[in-house]
Amino acid sequence: MKEKDETEFMKEAVQAAIKGMDANEGGPFGCVVVKDGIIVGRGNNKVTSTNDPTAHAEISAIRDACINLNSFQLEGCIIYTSCEPCPMCLGAIYWARPDRVFYGCTHNDAAKIGFDDEFIYKEIALPINDRSIPFEQLGHEMALDAFKKWEDKEDKIEY
Amino acid sequence: MKEKDETEFMKEAVQAAIKGMDANEGGPFGCVVVKDGIIVGRGNNKVTSTNDPTAHAEISAIRDACINLNSFQLEGCIIYTSCEPCPMCLGAIYWARPDRVFYGCTHNDAAKIGFDDEFIYKEIALPINDRSIPFEQLGHEMALDAFKKWEDKEDKIEY
Repeated sequence: MKEKDETEFMKEAVQAAIKGMDANEGGPFGCVVVKDGIIVGRGNNKVTSTNDPTAHAEISAIRDACINLNSFQLEGCIIYTSCEPCPMCLGAIYWARPDRVFYGCTHNDAAKIGFDDEFIYKEIALPINDRSIPFEQLGHEMALDAFKKWEDKEDKIEY
Repeated sequence: MKEKDETEFMKEAVQAAIKGMDANEGGPFGCVVVKDGIIVGRGNNKVTSTNDPTAHAEISAIRDACINLNSFQLEGCIIYTSCEPCPMCLGAIYWARPDRVFYGCTHNDAAKIGFDDEFIYKEIALPINDRSIPFEQLGHEMALDAFKKWEDKEDKIEY
């Protein structure tokens, strides 16, 4: 039974991808977050329709699940995404800390239809000064002041 | 004059960090997006106050700037962030495509106050099967169907 359930959840993710694409919301990517056998979050790509480059399926589904679960962590959850996550979404998955991830298509499949995140994976692995977008440090002492204030803050909520 | 302006924008990013932290919105991180010398987007960390693990300063500022500019791309923009971006935010920056990024604190500074994204950077560089969160492929053929539909779609908006 378990295997069938997993395939059903992936089907939900793929259907979210197709539904969103058909409605011209964005690219063909969908995602669901499942906890205890129940879908607690849904998302599909809405980059072009909402002018939000961060509105990928996984980011959207994680945000939806966290609202529904009233938590900024997804412990005990399983993410089903119709395609292997891009670096941004992979980062979001690590911050959200689900138990595991199922993915349908690979990033090679995505590259073949014009969504090539291989470039971003390569850039992230580079030293900061070797990246194609120039990064420059500025105002270090001033910025450290915020961190010192955080260290001294007595009522901070750590995460 | 240019150098002074840049420092002023970093000051705005740091002030957003401090203001958000003082209001218990989240960690001590702030960001502004600047175009043609004008701030077009602002953000600060709101992870704990909004139960959104993706509500980092850079993601929030990028989303704000894109709404204000009515675009999902930040060409011609400069991002000022009070701390070197985590992998999720770095991915978001690559998708948004600003011209350059200024950062205040380093990720080593962040690690010292308990925000250690070095682990995520290391995980992203690993082959998918070697990562600490298990990733498993499932329903490949079914998922490819969404991609085939995208390829055949005549009115798609590519990005």
